[in-house]
Amino acid sequence: MRHFLNPLDFTVGELDEVLDLADEIRQNPERYSQVCKGKKIATLFYEPSTRTRLSFEAAMLNLGGSVLGFATADSSSATKGESVSDTIRIVSCYADICAMRHPKEGAPLVASLKSSIPVINAGDGGHQHPTQTLTDLCTIRSLKGRLSDLTIGLCGDLKFGRTVHSLISALVRYPHIRFVLISPDALRIPSYIRDNTLIKNKIPFKEVQRLEDVMPELDILYMTRVQKERFFNEEDYIRMKDSYILDAEKMKLAREDMLVLHPLPRVNEISVEVDDDPRAAYFKQVQFGVYARMALIMTLLGLGGK
Amino acid sequence: MRHFLNPLDFTVGELDEVLDLADEIRQNPERYSQVCKGKKIATLFYEPSTRTRLSFEAAMLNLGGSVLGFATADSSSATKGESVSDTIRIVSCYADICAMRHPKEGAPLVASLKSSIPVINAGDGGHQHPTQTLTDLCTIRSLKGRLSDLTIGLCGDLKFGRTVHSLISALVRYPHIRFVLISPDALRIPSYIRDNTLIKNKIPFKEVQRLEDVMPELDILYMTRVQKERFFNEEDYIRMKDSYILDAEKMKLAREDMLVLHPLPRVNEISVEVDDDPRAAYFKQVQFGVYARMALIMTLLGLGGK
Amino acid sequence: MRHFLNPLDFTVGELDEVLDLADEIRQNPERYSQVCKGKKIATLFYEPSTRTRLSFEAAMLNLGGSVLGFATADSSSATKGESVSDTIRIVSCYADICAMRHPKEGAPLVASLKSSIPVINAGDGGHQHPTQTLTDLCTIRSLKGRLSDLTIGLCGDLKFGRTVHSLISALVRYPHIRFVLISPDALRIPSYIRDNTLIKNKIPFKEVQRLEDVMPELDILYMTRVQKERFFNEEDYIRMKDSYILDAEKMKLAREDMLVLHPLPRVNEISVEVDDDPRAAYFKQVQFGVYARMALIMTLLGLGGK
Repeated sequence: MRHFLNPLDFTVGELDEVLDLADEIRQNPERYSQVCKGKKIATLFYEPSTRTRLSFEAAMLNLGGSVLGFATADSSSATKGESVSDTIRIVSCYADICAMRHPKEGAPLVASLKSSIPVINAGDGGHQHPTQTLTDLCTIRSLKGRLSDLTIGLCGDLKFGRTVHSLISALVRYPHIRFVLISPDALRIPSYIRDNTLIKNKIPFKEVQRLEDVMPELDILYMTRVQKERFFNEEDYIRMKDSYILDAEKMKLAREDMLVLHPLPRVNEISVEVDDDPRAAYFKQVQFGVYARMALIMTLLGLGGK
Repeated sequence: MRHFLNPLDFTVGELDEVLDLADEIRQNPERYSQVCKGKKIATLFYEPSTRTRLSFEAAMLNLGGSVLGFATADSSSATKGESVSDTIRIVSCYADICAMRHPKEGAPLVASLKSSIPVINAGDGGHQHPTQTLTDLCTIRSLKGRLSDLTIGLCGDLKFGRTVHSLISALVRYPHIRFVLISPDALRIPSYIRDNTLIKNKIPFKEVQRLEDVMPELDILYMTRVQKERFFNEEDYIRMKDSYILDAEKMKLAREDMLVLHPLPRVNEISVEVDDDPRAAYFKQVQFGVYARMALIMTLLGLGGK
Repeated sequence: MRHFLNPLDFTVGELDEVLDLADEIRQNPERYSQVCKGKKIATLFYEPSTRTRLSFEAAMLNLGGSVLGFATADSSSATKGESVSDTIRIVSCYADICAMRHPKEGAPLVASLKSSIPVINAGDGGHQHPTQTLTDLCTIRSLKGRLSDLTIGLCGDLKFGRTVHSLISALVRYPHIRFVLISPDALRIPSYIRDNTLIKNKIPFKEVQRLEDVMPELDILYMTRVQKERFFNEEDYIRMKDSYILDAEKMKLAREDMLVLHPLPRVNEISVEVDDDPRAAYFKQVQFGVYARMALIMTLLGLGGK
């Protein structure tokens, strides 16, 4: 039995198979509309994340399966002191697979150790959010046709943004990847990622503070939200939050075929005037996320083979 | 693509088709039990309304479709600052149709502008609640056999009660409708409805303060709840809330074939002793609400034609 | 139409039929995977109980039916002052059967009086939790092969633990049952149960304070959680909560074929080292709970006959 706790849990070859399946599903959704008939996914969301939860639920329903679970911890047994290990043993009696979101890092890993069903990490604290990374890879691969030979700009909060960290770790496994890291000084990429992931693997990268300066170089611009709750004080937040806003003016500097991605939700870091630009891929990304999760569910349930 | 944001979005002819379909569904539920197979409704409830939400969910399940969504705003991305426009674009990737309840007036309209799936307004603040109106029309038409030639008493909070306002706007489009408006002086129908909807359209109506005085005239008595939260102070609420209670005594004054409707939930404005009166139609109304929503979902998904 | 409000609502013979059906379902789940197609269960949880709610939902989904409802009272019409009697009349229009959890004792009974669909009591305050009892009976009967000739130890909070009270009432109807009641003095079984259920029915029992002393006698050890919220003060809780912890050491004193049951969630009253002991049956119990609920739903919907 396999779990999906970290994007690196799958080899590049295994990921390719998942992404191939996602692509096949996208082209022939009808063919897959009953493959999970009689199967159930449990969505165990110890903190709310509507978009991610609904993506999993849509994925399972699209496959003909059904859904049970909870959307916030207040309605879970956690409040009665039950451990994640006990909860997963119980849920193993109710469902065939589960997606767990938890504010504590490592909780899905702990669950997986006692689980008799596949566990998907749907986000654990500031740690991992591997199905977002799978979504990002699926989007880039489908729209660019490749996951290699790309210059990828990552913009915004690179210090706390777990989607950025996961995406870097996932992309360094592909050939000829180059990163442009765009952030205020206070929100630079953590040194353990710079040293252990980028430098160690001899991945070319540069760090800059102004988005305008690097727009023309990018194949992909991955924008991230400046999360208010990550800041130490209100002042810093207000001073910096507007520094990295993508608007139509900045888009003029970009290549014709550059793609803009964003893990969503966005607040104001991408101006709505960019939404109608054909290079804006962040809403398409949501659709790719459903296909990626469908492929992942099938794979973990052993239904992905040919 | 059509949305359903306001009862007046549909012409009388279009409404007739929806109500005909509702009637057909009521008589042959089995025939419609799979028409939405593979389709999903998203119930986006930014404020809780269990009755309305469950009615939509029952409707979709009765049609063989499935359901995803959220029941309160705390578990939605709204708390992270996402706009309704972004949410609907995302949900468009997850579902085939959506029902949105929102505390802000106009939110479903804003959503519909960016949506690629039909949006049903499931109540927006004090503004509209068009599926309640559709339910009311369906109930009256099914039990009375017509939507014309009726004297309709509207009783209770006529100032803030949006279901009353919507019902008036919907009924003035049918011939030979007469209204009796029964309320305390402080909760009279707003002047913009009196002037622009009733007087302008030459609809006969009268305003009275005592329910007893007009009971014998009515074909329909539409009771409404005195919502505590609409009052400016506790005193006013306590003084007035009991003024308009329907009981067995008052029912003696009514015609044999008068119908009592209520949008529910009721608190004490209809005494439980009235429940067993054959003229009490407020629980039947709930059942008609499911048929009306089934017909509406089918119609908006383009499955309503012959 | 039958409801299931109290384990004693069913005769021993009727319970036998439900438990036989549960057993048949366990052995041939595929055969039952569509029997509730087109049927809906409403899970009306006025207080959260994730484990119980998900068990009902899994049960209905396993039978091919579908689910709607609410997980907490905040999202229900109860907050608008609607009575349980009104809610059940409304829900009767939405679903074919319902499971109600309510903090007030007797609420499911009140609901059943106005309901036109079967009502299952999914726990009402400190009063009853009959599907837990059904689960317990199903587990004992399946793993022991009988519900008679058993010495049953009940350990922990015997004063407030409703699962213990219900289980005693259910088991005294079978021949040759003997109870060993293990609790601190302050949490002894209430006198109305001792006098009216045990003594009146001439059921042999003894009351002890130390678990170690009676381990060798037991066929079944039913552990219960020491619920912090039942204690009058923090001090008492801290002093007593660790007194009745089952660990590997105590398990050495037990028979080879003794079974450990627990209604879950557990906090620390069973040490995790016991989990891998083949006599630990509390996670199997969860699975039996799903089969028991499947059998119950079928029976109440009139689908249980041969």
